[in-house]
Amino acid sequence: MTDSQAILKGDRLALARLLTKVENDSPEGRAALIELFPHTGRAHLIGVTGAPGTGKSSLVNQLALHYRKTEDRRVAIVAVDPSSPFTGGAVLGDRVRMRDLSGDPNVFIRSMASRGSLGGLAQATANMVQIFDAAGFDIIMIETVGAGQSEVDIARLAHTTLVVEAPGLGDDIQAIKAGILEIADILVVNKADRPGVENTEKALKSMLELAHPTERVFKHHGTYMSVSVPKPTTNAKLWIPPIQRTISIEGTGIPELAESIAKHVEHLRQSGDWALRERTRLEVEVEALIRDSLMTRFHEDVSSKKYEEVLEKVVQRNISPWEAVKMLLNGRLK
Amino acid sequence: MTDSQAILKGDRLALARLLTKVENDSPEGRAALIELFPHTGRAHLIGVTGAPGTGKSSLVNQLALHYRKTEDRRVAIVAVDPSSPFTGGAVLGDRVRMRDLSGDPNVFIRSMASRGSLGGLAQATANMVQIFDAAGFDIIMIETVGAGQSEVDIARLAHTTLVVEAPGLGDDIQAIKAGILEIADILVVNKADRPGVENTEKALKSMLELAHPTERVFKHHGTYMSVSVPKPTTNAKLWIPPIQRTISIEGTGIPELAESIAKHVEHLRQSGDWALRERTRLEVEVEALIRDSLMTRFHEDVSSKKYEEVLEKVVQRNISPWEAVKMLLNGRLK
Repeated sequence: MTDSQAILKGDRLALARLLTKVENDSPEGRAALIELFPHTGRAHLIGVTGAPGTGKSSLVNQLALHYRKTEDRRVAIVAVDPSSPFTGGAVLGDRVRMRDLSGDPNVFIRSMASRGSLGGLAQATANMVQIFDAAGFDIIMIETVGAGQSEVDIARLAHTTLVVEAPGLGDDIQAIKAGILEIADILVVNKADRPGVENTEKALKSMLELAHPTERVFKHHGTYMSVSVPKPTTNAKLWIPPIQRTISIEGTGIPELAESIAKHVEHLRQSGDWALRERTRLEVEVEALIRDSLMTRFHEDVSSKKYEEVLEKVVQRNISPWEAVKMLLNGRLK
Repeated sequence: MTDSQAILKGDRLALARLLTKVENDSPEGRAALIELFPHTGRAHLIGVTGAPGTGKSSLVNQLALHYRKTEDRRVAIVAVDPSSPFTGGAVLGDRVRMRDLSGDPNVFIRSMASRGSLGGLAQATANMVQIFDAAGFDIIMIETVGAGQSEVDIARLAHTTLVVEAPGLGDDIQAIKAGILEIADILVVNKADRPGVENTEKALKSMLELAHPTERVFKHHGTYMSVSVPKPTTNAKLWIPPIQRTISIEGTGIPELAESIAKHVEHLRQSGDWALRERTRLEVEVEALIRDSLMTRFHEDVSSKKYEEVLEKVVQRNISPWEAVKMLLNGRLK
């Protein structure tokens, strides 16, 4: 019996083994992804993102407990830490999680540190999620740290994205979130027993309004400064992200949050957005694989001697990077 | 006279115009990059990264002032905010900067919000930097917010990378930095008049030691948890990152920081690392351009009808993404 077959039967050791193979992008991992793909598409993918200090991990923990206790759903957690590209800092929060969830055969937690490149990380996460999906986990939570592009890329994997805030993290941390708010389906104000919770909520509300500006604004502060604002994506949302208060450490607000999540799933199903997000996700994945394949073929085709020669010309400033690319691709792949 | 020629003569309006063209990846922008490339390779690129709240922008401001006043060097600042992928939050800190630097014709500040993809952002930043380099700016500071992969990618552009910390930002913010420490050439403890500065410095020192572990550690917490640690890069550094205290708001420690930066440049020149970093940077750029070109050609070659058909099969779970890629690339580019 292959690992793939074992996984479909619920073998956890085979699952752990295969996750490693998939993370390492090994041939067996790839074969399993192909074999298991027809069994995917059933899980609800929930992205959870937020700055350090918001209590994100404990929130994920509590949500998992809730889904176990009240709905008996199988839960997988993929904790991704893109902030640690070299040494692997993905062990944060693991201790907290273990206490309540360990020993439950219907919970599986996988921590993942960053790979060399961000594309690689998002791809590896997508692959992990597929394996969990095929293995019959009903809910897969993808937890990411921070508020950068990486989180956005990973959040794009999810059907429902929670953005976690907490009071008292400083003024400019609030400001920094303006961007990530737009990927939020649900806003969570965790640590809601802290002073300043009203202010955080108020700030979030006004930022939600700012997040979907009706007109494009150009600013030009003085003569020597120029600011460019990228075009907003034209993704008219009918869903207005609710703001949920929680105190994850004691479980307060978790049932209400789970209810919000259920409502969002309902909205996705009814509006057709579920299918749309599925399609987008798969398209992004196909594009990434094409990119990888084309690059692999390119490096197989072009001798490393020629490549080094052309690169040296760039280093010497004899030709520009653009001209180098023309030179390297010329006569190939019309 | 083309914009490129005007820029070489110091025309600031042409510079502003061209930066926009380059940021928008327009044909004129590309042509100018090719034309100007032989004039690049002279500037010192300084990356400045750190979490929100560390006073990074004001530090960059003060460093720029220092280079203007004491060394009469021309300074460009590229402020990148990858945390704001949609609405453009790159205006943070601009107000602070303007007060002291506006009106100085030898300072040019450009804020940049994130593009659609991270690759695009790093590429756009690299292109901006090339334009500033060709335009004769001696020092180009690339400021990024946060501690994610995007910052790492952008920091790879720089010759010298400063990682900025501040006391009192919370415990787990410290932990989160373990990864980014490895890209630091100089560590800055800003807001050094705050309580807790000794602790922050102590934490940084011990993390510096941890950041270059001699053995690879695997952890396995309990049965249902697996943690993977990526291989550390084998980049033996002779340079030990110094820790500099600053109070940027009042300029304290700035001359000492500038001295550290100068020492790092000396180290890069003497060790041959300067040439190595230049080469790596240009190689990354060439690779990115090849990737883009191959994808563009692919989408020109494959009809959107065929592409949609294959994608639909994936969405229907009839074929896996891997099989889709094989189908799309089959018979092409051997």
